[in-house]
Amino acid sequence: MYNEQLKHELSKRWNTLQTALQRENGDALLVTSNVNLFYVSGRIFSGTAYIVPDQESLFFVRRPTGLKGENIIYIRKPEEIPGHLQERGLPLPKYLFMESDSLSYNEYVRYEKTFSPERIGNGSRLLREARSIKTIYEIGRIMRSGVLHAQLYERIPSLFRPGMTDLDLSIEIERECRRLGSLGLFRIFGQSMEIFMGSLLAGDNADAPSPYDFALGGAGQDLSLPIGSNGTPLKGNISIMVDMGGNFTGYTTDMSRVFSVGKLPDLALKAHDTSLKIQQEIIRTAHPGVPAAELYNLAARMAEEAGLSAYFMGHRQQAGFVGHGIGIEINESPVLAPRSKEVLKAGMVFALEPKFVIPEVGAVGVENSFLVTDNGLEQLTLCEETIIPLD
Amino acid sequence: MYNEQLKHELSKRWNTLQTALQRENGDALLVTSNVNLFYVSGRIFSGTAYIVPDQESLFFVRRPTGLKGENIIYIRKPEEIPGHLQERGLPLPKYLFMESDSLSYNEYVRYEKTFSPERIGNGSRLLREARSIKTIYEIGRIMRSGVLHAQLYERIPSLFRPGMTDLDLSIEIERECRRLGSLGLFRIFGQSMEIFMGSLLAGDNADAPSPYDFALGGAGQDLSLPIGSNGTPLKGNISIMVDMGGNFTGYTTDMSRVFSVGKLPDLALKAHDTSLKIQQEIIRTAHPGVPAAELYNLAARMAEEAGLSAYFMGHRQQAGFVGHGIGIEINESPVLAPRSKEVLKAGMVFALEPKFVIPEVGAVGVENSFLVTDNGLEQLTLCEETIIPLD
Repeated sequence: MYNEQLKHELSKRWNTLQTALQRENGDALLVTSNVNLFYVSGRIFSGTAYIVPDQESLFFVRRPTGLKGENIIYIRKPEEIPGHLQERGLPLPKYLFMESDSLSYNEYVRYEKTFSPERIGNGSRLLREARSIKTIYEIGRIMRSGVLHAQLYERIPSLFRPGMTDLDLSIEIERECRRLGSLGLFRIFGQSMEIFMGSLLAGDNADAPSPYDFALGGAGQDLSLPIGSNGTPLKGNISIMVDMGGNFTGYTTDMSRVFSVGKLPDLALKAHDTSLKIQQEIIRTAHPGVPAAELYNLAARMAEEAGLSAYFMGHRQQAGFVGHGIGIEINESPVLAPRSKEVLKAGMVFALEPKFVIPEVGAVGVENSFLVTDNGLEQLTLCEETIIPLD
Repeated sequence: MYNEQLKHELSKRWNTLQTALQRENGDALLVTSNVNLFYVSGRIFSGTAYIVPDQESLFFVRRPTGLKGENIIYIRKPEEIPGHLQERGLPLPKYLFMESDSLSYNEYVRYEKTFSPERIGNGSRLLREARSIKTIYEIGRIMRSGVLHAQLYERIPSLFRPGMTDLDLSIEIERECRRLGSLGLFRIFGQSMEIFMGSLLAGDNADAPSPYDFALGGAGQDLSLPIGSNGTPLKGNISIMVDMGGNFTGYTTDMSRVFSVGKLPDLALKAHDTSLKIQQEIIRTAHPGVPAAELYNLAARMAEEAGLSAYFMGHRQQAGFVGHGIGIEINESPVLAPRSKEVLKAGMVFALEPKFVIPEVGAVGVENSFLVTDNGLEQLTLCEETIIPLD
């Protein structure tokens, strides 16, 4: 089913999860969500992966047909799994880890009945922790996304035409993104956050509060998806923040850049400059061992010292974080937030987005994706960071 | 928060759910998923809706800030809800319905602890049943999506350029779809089905089995999203099936049309013709009271009589349904499948997609969205149904 490189890669990931299971005295980890099936198998399939501490992982597949491999067993329903385990001489798990943060209640109960374990642990946590430290292979995919993501942003000024609305420009950027190889959708942990390919926020629409847990809002086109562009004409003296997802490889980068039409007031320019300074200071400070919360506090303090607290991470509604882990999903571990308990480790990848919303002007600031290395941060999304005039 | 029309509409929906609660002797229904929050409130918000049999619905909102209304109560976390209920003189529910098909296990347990009901029922079922019968207002939104969806498909031939791959054409259709007002993403029930804006399947790629529960597959661009276009050049003698979602209004229509380059073999033309005949026969047969399974059986029997069973709803991998309810999500009730227990009712809306995959040629057949009325089916996606040559 795979080439040697991916086989080697997957066995590294299984090792990480096996070590975690051993540490927790778990007997097995049941993997059921698309995102985590992709992590443990290198592809999306319909079915279940079964990870045990001391044997090869098994893959119980419903669809697609035609997958081949020693550890692939076709099933029609999960209830067939225990029989297959017994056939292979494997005991049923007494302490089973399941994805209780993402499995629906009814699915969870179905698996619980199928395996009747004595005890169930939170497999979502194990997988989240494992995935927070990226392998070299994963870093390669993220870096590739970052390169294409930056190429997209370099092309944005050439896509602007006078008379456009925010939606018009967004649609041209989305098309260019797809032409560069974007898979279109990017994945988000949890069911409550929904967004199309990203957002383009022009002028005061950046100050429209959204229901979602994204850094900024925007009224959107419809109350069924109230986020992002709302038809604002790109004229007057406004900023245009582009924050599109960069899923070109199954692994996503995140970046934002600011463009302008007309002339922005000094307050907006100062806020943008402060964002760049925050980024600079965090690059200087961040390295393995630094608490994620400390980075948030640093950013919030610098915003305060610049007298910009009222605009930091939003204005009418403010977000409570300044960065977030990225990988297969746009919201992984670590979270750069005041109450985060996470500590930076080499191999973590996160997006840093100190942003400001200036009423009647729009959003300013910069967002980039960074890899944590032993020597500090490595920036994965590289292109011009100043405000670029479109007109 | 709303105009009078939407207020009236929402009270009708609450009535439907209240009647269902009374029938089941339930004390309250807790609504937590975005899709169902949109259904009961007319907008997406972060929070919880609380429906009781004999009082106004309450909305406990975390985000966005600034919503106003008598029945809107701002909270920071769900644990605050019981206190608010007591303040309003409302008892805690003994028999509580929750969305156990979509709430994650951990969220479910959190709500369970918050309310400590004696008994919990499956609220997902109540909501699915209620939503399966569309109101006039909802039908209006679906019809509007259908009109725009058909406009999009009429423009497809003008988007084709010689030398294009399936992806190139798909990207131009996606752009046109957005320019016509599409919100981009459409919603899918369950976590296992993922797709970008829809799929365009050219030639033999239509026969690549997918892991998802969509009617047809396609290898896709990457193993992280193995569905749809895969870079197939649009040349030779192949069919091109376009199956894009039509979410222009928060309510989606579904339709597929087939285009061709070169000359298609008789087998493909016969299969397309059979699809049209199946559709015609189902239009003739379907009316309130007809079991959904009967419509599937009719389609499968006609495919068999035409000697096309081996190609019906896929070839290397075959889908087990020929139609599906649509609305806020692309996969609602009823399902036209052999073991479906559902019976058609006036107000149901479903997509009918009798399709065939001919090896080395591609997919043929037609898909349209239909409303069930007292007088039979009303087609909501109207445009040319023959195979349209692009070259």
